[in-house]
Amino acid sequence: MSKHIDIINKYESVVRSYVRNFPTVFTKAKKHKMWDESGKEYLDFFSGAGALNYGHNDDKMKQKLVDYIMEDGITHSLDMASIAKADFIEKFQEVILKPRELDYKMMFPGPTGTNTVESALKLARKVTGRTDIISFTGGFHGMTIGSLSVTGNSMKRQGAGIPLQNTVTMAYDNYVDHDTLVYLERFLEDNGSGVAIPAAMIVETVQGEGGINAARFEWLKKIEEICRRWGILLIIDDVQAGVGRTGTFFSFEAAGIKPDIVCLSKSLSGYGVPLAVTLIKPELDIWKPGEHNGTFRGNNHAFVTATAALDYWEDESFEQSIHEKSEIIYASLQKIVSDYPELKGEVRGRGFMVGIASEVEGLASKVAEKCFAKGLIMETAGPNDEVFKLFPPLTIPKEDLEKGLAIIEESVRDSVKDPVTN
Amino acid sequence: MSKHIDIINKYESVVRSYVRNFPTVFTKAKKHKMWDESGKEYLDFFSGAGALNYGHNDDKMKQKLVDYIMEDGITHSLDMASIAKADFIEKFQEVILKPRELDYKMMFPGPTGTNTVESALKLARKVTGRTDIISFTGGFHGMTIGSLSVTGNSMKRQGAGIPLQNTVTMAYDNYVDHDTLVYLERFLEDNGSGVAIPAAMIVETVQGEGGINAARFEWLKKIEEICRRWGILLIIDDVQAGVGRTGTFFSFEAAGIKPDIVCLSKSLSGYGVPLAVTLIKPELDIWKPGEHNGTFRGNNHAFVTATAALDYWEDESFEQSIHEKSEIIYASLQKIVSDYPELKGEVRGRGFMVGIASEVEGLASKVAEKCFAKGLIMETAGPNDEVFKLFPPLTIPKEDLEKGLAIIEESVRDSVKDPVTN
Amino acid sequence: MSKHIDIINKYESVVRSYVRNFPTVFTKAKKHKMWDESGKEYLDFFSGAGALNYGHNDDKMKQKLVDYIMEDGITHSLDMASIAKADFIEKFQEVILKPRELDYKMMFPGPTGTNTVESALKLARKVTGRTDIISFTGGFHGMTIGSLSVTGNSMKRQGAGIPLQNTVTMAYDNYVDHDTLVYLERFLEDNGSGVAIPAAMIVETVQGEGGINAARFEWLKKIEEICRRWGILLIIDDVQAGVGRTGTFFSFEAAGIKPDIVCLSKSLSGYGVPLAVTLIKPELDIWKPGEHNGTFRGNNHAFVTATAALDYWEDESFEQSIHEKSEIIYASLQKIVSDYPELKGEVRGRGFMVGIASEVEGLASKVAEKCFAKGLIMETAGPNDEVFKLFPPLTIPKEDLEKGLAIIEESVRDSVKDPVTN
Amino acid sequence: MSKHIDIINKYESVVRSYVRNFPTVFTKAKKHKMWDESGKEYLDFFSGAGALNYGHNDDKMKQKLVDYIMEDGITHSLDMASIAKADFIEKFQEVILKPRELDYKMMFPGPTGTNTVESALKLARKVTGRTDIISFTGGFHGMTIGSLSVTGNSMKRQGAGIPLQNTVTMAYDNYVDHDTLVYLERFLEDNGSGVAIPAAMIVETVQGEGGINAARFEWLKKIEEICRRWGILLIIDDVQAGVGRTGTFFSFEAAGIKPDIVCLSKSLSGYGVPLAVTLIKPELDIWKPGEHNGTFRGNNHAFVTATAALDYWEDESFEQSIHEKSEIIYASLQKIVSDYPELKGEVRGRGFMVGIASEVEGLASKVAEKCFAKGLIMETAGPNDEVFKLFPPLTIPKEDLEKGLAIIEESVRDSVKDPVTN
Repeated sequence: MSKHIDIINKYESVVRSYVRNFPTVFTKAKKHKMWDESGKEYLDFFSGAGALNYGHNDDKMKQKLVDYIMEDGITHSLDMASIAKADFIEKFQEVILKPRELDYKMMFPGPTGTNTVESALKLARKVTGRTDIISFTGGFHGMTIGSLSVTGNSMKRQGAGIPLQNTVTMAYDNYVDHDTLVYLERFLEDNGSGVAIPAAMIVETVQGEGGINAARFEWLKKIEEICRRWGILLIIDDVQAGVGRTGTFFSFEAAGIKPDIVCLSKSLSGYGVPLAVTLIKPELDIWKPGEHNGTFRGNNHAFVTATAALDYWEDESFEQSIHEKSEIIYASLQKIVSDYPELKGEVRGRGFMVGIASEVEGLASKVAEKCFAKGLIMETAGPNDEVFKLFPPLTIPKEDLEKGLAIIEESVRDSVKDPVTN
Repeated sequence: MSKHIDIINKYESVVRSYVRNFPTVFTKAKKHKMWDESGKEYLDFFSGAGALNYGHNDDKMKQKLVDYIMEDGITHSLDMASIAKADFIEKFQEVILKPRELDYKMMFPGPTGTNTVESALKLARKVTGRTDIISFTGGFHGMTIGSLSVTGNSMKRQGAGIPLQNTVTMAYDNYVDHDTLVYLERFLEDNGSGVAIPAAMIVETVQGEGGINAARFEWLKKIEEICRRWGILLIIDDVQAGVGRTGTFFSFEAAGIKPDIVCLSKSLSGYGVPLAVTLIKPELDIWKPGEHNGTFRGNNHAFVTATAALDYWEDESFEQSIHEKSEIIYASLQKIVSDYPELKGEVRGRGFMVGIASEVEGLASKVAEKCFAKGLIMETAGPNDEVFKLFPPLTIPKEDLEKGLAIIEESVRDSVKDPVTN
Repeated sequence: MSKHIDIINKYESVVRSYVRNFPTVFTKAKKHKMWDESGKEYLDFFSGAGALNYGHNDDKMKQKLVDYIMEDGITHSLDMASIAKADFIEKFQEVILKPRELDYKMMFPGPTGTNTVESALKLARKVTGRTDIISFTGGFHGMTIGSLSVTGNSMKRQGAGIPLQNTVTMAYDNYVDHDTLVYLERFLEDNGSGVAIPAAMIVETVQGEGGINAARFEWLKKIEEICRRWGILLIIDDVQAGVGRTGTFFSFEAAGIKPDIVCLSKSLSGYGVPLAVTLIKPELDIWKPGEHNGTFRGNNHAFVTATAALDYWEDESFEQSIHEKSEIIYASLQKIVSDYPELKGEVRGRGFMVGIASEVEGLASKVAEKCFAKGLIMETAGPNDEVFKLFPPLTIPKEDLEKGLAIIEESVRDSVKDPVTN
Repeated sequence: MSKHIDIINKYESVVRSYVRNFPTVFTKAKKHKMWDESGKEYLDFFSGAGALNYGHNDDKMKQKLVDYIMEDGITHSLDMASIAKADFIEKFQEVILKPRELDYKMMFPGPTGTNTVESALKLARKVTGRTDIISFTGGFHGMTIGSLSVTGNSMKRQGAGIPLQNTVTMAYDNYVDHDTLVYLERFLEDNGSGVAIPAAMIVETVQGEGGINAARFEWLKKIEEICRRWGILLIIDDVQAGVGRTGTFFSFEAAGIKPDIVCLSKSLSGYGVPLAVTLIKPELDIWKPGEHNGTFRGNNHAFVTATAALDYWEDESFEQSIHEKSEIIYASLQKIVSDYPELKGEVRGRGFMVGIASEVEGLASKVAEKCFAKGLIMETAGPNDEVFKLFPPLTIPKEDLEKGLAIIEESVRDSVKDPVTN
């Protein structure tokens, strides 16, 4: 082991996790590639769990960021006004919101995903005067107590050390064999159900951590309709599925819905530096000044790179390229499932947020492990790590995408041959 | 108003707050100075609410950061291993922990203050199997539900929209005229008090948001002793008071205590970019892998600057200079209080974390406002904004420190003349 | 109005409710009949909401009670030993538990239904170390905070004034068109469902307040099996359905299940005086002495009448007679539903716990109102009062039962003729 | 052991408690005396923990009760109107409330102490729209989750199995050496205290279970004043201290305060049968019909005896006699404390609600045990059972009172001689 790994093993908390799956020391990264201390090159099909949709260290963003730093542009501004922030807000309105006919105020709640989720939940409760939030099976929204309360994973929930309250879990799309919304509506309309009309529902259109579950568009539309009927706010947590991951900037565009509140983070800054925003329908923006705050809510480096990243969305070519490549991915995964019946696999997801769920215990992890040995970084997801999850950068060239898919196929082939050893 | 302010007023959520007190657009910053769009120069006695203890855009850190970016060093790594992270861990152990005979594991819980607090509370509950946390009047720990539960401010608490649970508030030092710990101990030792032995106490040694209240060292020692006696974990939230703000790296050093868990963020990265760490006594580090996580827990830009920032602590000269300048500040504030009895002022705090509390309603805000007009940035604190709060960078040269103190004196003089108009 | 009603209207809290539906002053009662101030006689198809299964003022019990009082038998004994209590315990074991091969310890938790439910929930949490309880849609368990948390009715829940916590509501049998237990099991087996394995499930085999919903025996068996599989305690709340109401002493006998904890109250004392008992499998009886208590847990008047009431259960003739009469009731209700299609009625329940649910808004209440005018007391149930609910004493003679059924039929006939006026 | 004890030991839950301290089987009781199976006579200085203030089986009440039963008066009426209930309401208004210039609506929340407390807490939250309740160290209010949340005893609280929420404990009078209300007020007036303005404070004027702590009248007056100033409702829990126990009908009369809500139970029925009432200022009586209910809220046997019991209060002679006898008790206890310094005793309480707290661990229990052997029933109280507690019936004749006091003195004398053996 390297000296650097030794230091981490000795001094970093045992809570560390990815370093266990990818046991090497990374030094450098560019676009869809990473290199470790030994000089070994990796294809990155992980993208920082969705925080690097544009790949690593994009040259245009890098230049803007370095220029800004060299000019001593203000780095940390809390919620004072800075040009970097004003520019980001303006461009986000122009390039993203207006063309999509979305009218949102922008709140900077602190630079992480869990911070935007917490701000959304607080605001929904404040606006409605109700306390409950409906969340969904398989949902993942963050590790602070508010977000954790709406997160499904039982190991993570137990980490809270206290009962998690003020939430009700309902079944996500396809959770059982019949329409889960029949059930949800019955609970809402029945005065004797024990389930109160909630402040909000919080939904991921595609669940990442939950195992790459993609809700059908009609299910999402129905959710929106139910929310409207009962005066429930609809929060879309687009922290992982947003910023192009499913093929459009927002993951909910294709479903034709307009959430009341949208949570964005991860790839928002474009460069992998921390940034989050909470989008709020103007009529719901009833905060008192400073009622929610956070020291790093004005991270100007992130504003600079985030503004540069929006260039990708100025015309339709980027979406088009994602679409084309996602068809390659999908076809390739379908082929794997059909060629390797031992995998007992099912292709899940949409866009660049896809994976294969295997019914064979431990097999998905084995595939990911073999990929890593062959120079491809890919993680698993789902409550029992039953899914291997492809998250390549959206900007990956076709040939390297295909190279990566080939490594995955090989890894599947090798894995199904051996008895699984966990 | 400038175009940039217009954009912010139009599109940013009404939750924005500092832009209301400092209504201008900042463009550039260096050391202890900031400039706005019009070219006006400001002395910064605010330091990003304690996130910029080394001043803005420190040249050495800047160079390291730009070099790292130019070399395509890995930016975002979650908790995979990177050299930047290993280097930071190693140097933090060598320069900070070992010389102070502190033995802590380091957890990266997400890059914000509230994230480190949430991780500390979760771990304390997990370790002890108890649910309650004792927090203190005037405490401020963050805006996510877990941290907000231990925060005192009623306006912020109401923002939660739900009852905040599993916490008990006890009186901070000097909250009433007698020893507040008599009360606390009575509650703990009495089986009929209704207060259970908690998992932990969470304490700031000097409360910033709460109104610059500095606990006496003997009070802190007694807190530690009580915690030991009852098997309660002691969490020091050093997010604002740490990293030199009170004159030593950790604010608790002078009190001679050794907390079980320490929360650091704000100035930790040195450069104003997001970073947080939770320090944990090794025997308490019982997390399961991934039991707490966060997308930006591996912010390598911050590791790079944070490592560079530790150079300040390699010998005692930095502490010495803080100490000398803090005496100038303290003497100057004492003189203001005594020269302007109309202020009904009281000097509070220690080190570079000081302020004047005024009994006259609205007066502290008026002073801060006049300072701003005269080119000095300073905020107010306390539940009724009754304190104006001096947070200059620790690196400020004496002459500019004195220049700033003169502006404050002038502003006090001007303010006490007029009837306060709020 | 009478003077007595005036007093009540003037001084009793507006929370009073049955007096609004039955606006007269009752003076005397015997078996299945009641009389009011004016001497008007009523058939009682209400039985104190199930607290008077043996009718009013049963002569045998009355004699025993008066004898006991005349001899200055101890009235109030908390949980000191009294002969009246020992006699009750012994006879309950001999006549009820042993013949049914049920082995339970008996806890006297205070003399009301909500008290036995609270004790059951506390014990289940204590035994398992878990916090959540699964309750069911339409469930009713009492008005104190613990019991209210597992009660479905939204009006009653809102009366709590605080969020009700540590519970999860699942769908009762027939809540939707498919098997509700598929759903429940999916939540339990999925580590990502957000629903933790609970301490217990609390179930009524027939829901009274919830609208006379009778669970199928196979559903109850499956519930028991799920509980066993996951180490979840099964609590049957038999406060309303127990003591013969469904045709057997315990309502769960016919389903062939053996709950871990059983809650009994209402008709337990036989005479309408307050008594409750919590039956606990011996291995779960891990209370500390006095860990749950209550001033009236030793109500000896109730022990005396309760012991006398057990005479009804010494052979099978009582069960047999309930069974025969319940067939008359059932047939009669079926005929009403089929003869009056305008009622849009559905017969619900089993044994002497039956009713007709009408889809026509307000119609059930109208029928009950007309019955009252004709001298029959009957209440409505269900979240929207959509069910009229027949609860005659189990001891009612056939001819008076048929007289009552005739009044109901007339009232239905009259009600469906008029447009409903609410 | 007798057969009856065998039955109880075999079949009653281990939660049973008084039977452990008073290990005999009681058969008969009259006034201030009880007899066991063996014919042994006991002086009752326990009075059913305050439920038998008029002694056992009072002849006048007994006659009324038997007459009522013999006439087949309605026994169980929920909240339908009965003459027994109207008579009680009317007489309570005439004899108790009007002469004391108290204007209250009467709510029958179920027949136990915990039920009236739960109803009071619910109503206070409903009226104010706030969630928190301030309770006090040493408070005891009942065993259901709502009441338990405001109860201080840690063993009982842990019995809940869940964190108890929505309450804040403040220090009762004399909890520490200085005025505890300074502390309370500081928490209320400080916006940064972490303690929100509560819906209500719930107070016992003399704490029974908590260890016979009597608040000073000026402390109670100040509590009332603070409640008024902040719009907080004042709930007096007079379940144990009420109905004459302290010398007046309500325990708060002497303090000159008028609570918003009063909880009564225990001795209210006079005869030891279950009854409770919640007294509510008319303007606060905003319940919806049936929003709180309970099967035994109309226990007519109790109405009959409770009405008869009110005869004691028709003139001042009863109060006068309590007063005279309480002076005997007090003098006797003072003498014991001064004659037996080994007891390290302190006399506590007022009226007929008094005891001696001993600093010697286990000594109070020893005294109670010796008393029992000598034919006097007396219990201990306080979080560590450090107080022996005299609760004779208010009706006890002087000579038997003195006989009892002599037994206590003897028991103290015997106890201080031996080393305590627990």
